[in-house]
Amino acid sequence: MDKKRFAQQMAFALEIDKEKNIFRQTHLSNHGRNENDAEHAWHMAIMAYLLKEYSNEQIDIARVMIMCLIHDIVEIDAGDTYAYDEEAKKSQKEREQKAADRIFALLPEDQTKELRAIFEEFEAFETPEAKFAHAMENLQPLMLNDANNGGDWKEHDVAISSVMARQIQTKKGSEELFKYTKERLEHYVKVGTIRNE
Amino acid sequence: MDKKRFAQQMAFALEIDKEKNIFRQTHLSNHGRNENDAEHAWHMAIMAYLLKEYSNEQIDIARVMIMCLIHDIVEIDAGDTYAYDEEAKKSQKEREQKAADRIFALLPEDQTKELRAIFEEFEAFETPEAKFAHAMENLQPLMLNDANNGGDWKEHDVAISSVMARQIQTKKGSEELFKYTKERLEHYVKVGTIRNE
Repeated sequence: MDKKRFAQQMAFALEIDKEKNIFRQTHLSNHGRNENDAEHAWHMAIMAYLLKEYSNEQIDIARVMIMCLIHDIVEIDAGDTYAYDEEAKKSQKEREQKAADRIFALLPEDQTKELRAIFEEFEAFETPEAKFAHAMENLQPLMLNDANNGGDWKEHDVAISSVMARQIQTKKGSEELFKYTKERLEHYVKVGTIRNE
Repeated sequence: MDKKRFAQQMAFALEIDKEKNIFRQTHLSNHGRNENDAEHAWHMAIMAYLLKEYSNEQIDIARVMIMCLIHDIVEIDAGDTYAYDEEAKKSQKEREQKAADRIFALLPEDQTKELRAIFEEFEAFETPEAKFAHAMENLQPLMLNDANNGGDWKEHDVAISSVMARQIQTKKGSEELFKYTKERLEHYVKVGTIRNE
């Protein structure tokens, strides 16, 4: 064992523990507390494994899973940016790139490159794996929000145009999962939980 | 899309949300709160990916990751059993099998079989993947506990014989990671945090 290499790997492994303290706007089912990034990533990775048959394209599931698991690590420094907070989203990219520079650099050089590439692949949203991981990024909170009768949408008084601008991206990863998403959103517009604008 | 099949997959995906409310004895780094099962599983899966080069044998990393991610799902019904609680450990197997019967059965039949098999493979501790997943099951809380100066061992007043009986299993998955483990445990015995018995 190369002790320096192992120490770098463990430094990164310990650093990401902080992701458990980054809380999201989404609430756990049964009207629970806010969810944190580590829980969200865990849930997305399992859902990716379970729902991989709905991907539009063939995917390498190991790559999708590690992509889901690490995609929010930058929020340790950059914080969570709510999907429908247009002001915060303006500085999001810069804050997250700076965080990626610091956090992935804790690893040995080859793994810095490897994990940074996986993170950038997710961000670029071009490969089949990134597209399916983004579908999970959308579906997982939609599922929780649905289980809570749309409470998070109501609380933030969101319009269907904003929700759809994001959720329509699910189509790139899975036409079938987007059909389901659309049905659920139409329901919440109909009952007045999501503003019809 | 087979709607019944998808509804079963989503029922399982929603059910496992409850794992975020199952708290462990381990505390987060920086003397944080108790860790929950979902966070623990997320951390283990990433560590498995990062540290796979230390596995004694060739491993299928996708299988190790999904194994890490789901290995504690039974605790939704069975609760967390502390590694050094000898009384609770007597009924653990029965409680966890009953939970596995209920929870995995939420899935479509083929996935019930698939995920149950992955769970049983972890429990049986025989394949290279199960052995490496168990090494992560041991190393992840050891890392957090180490970051907190051994606080969890101190709180539970554990003896090195109990800790070692568990941690020595790491050898089956990784001789190299066990060497590191042994060094850290010897340190905590030396400073009196772990009882030398």
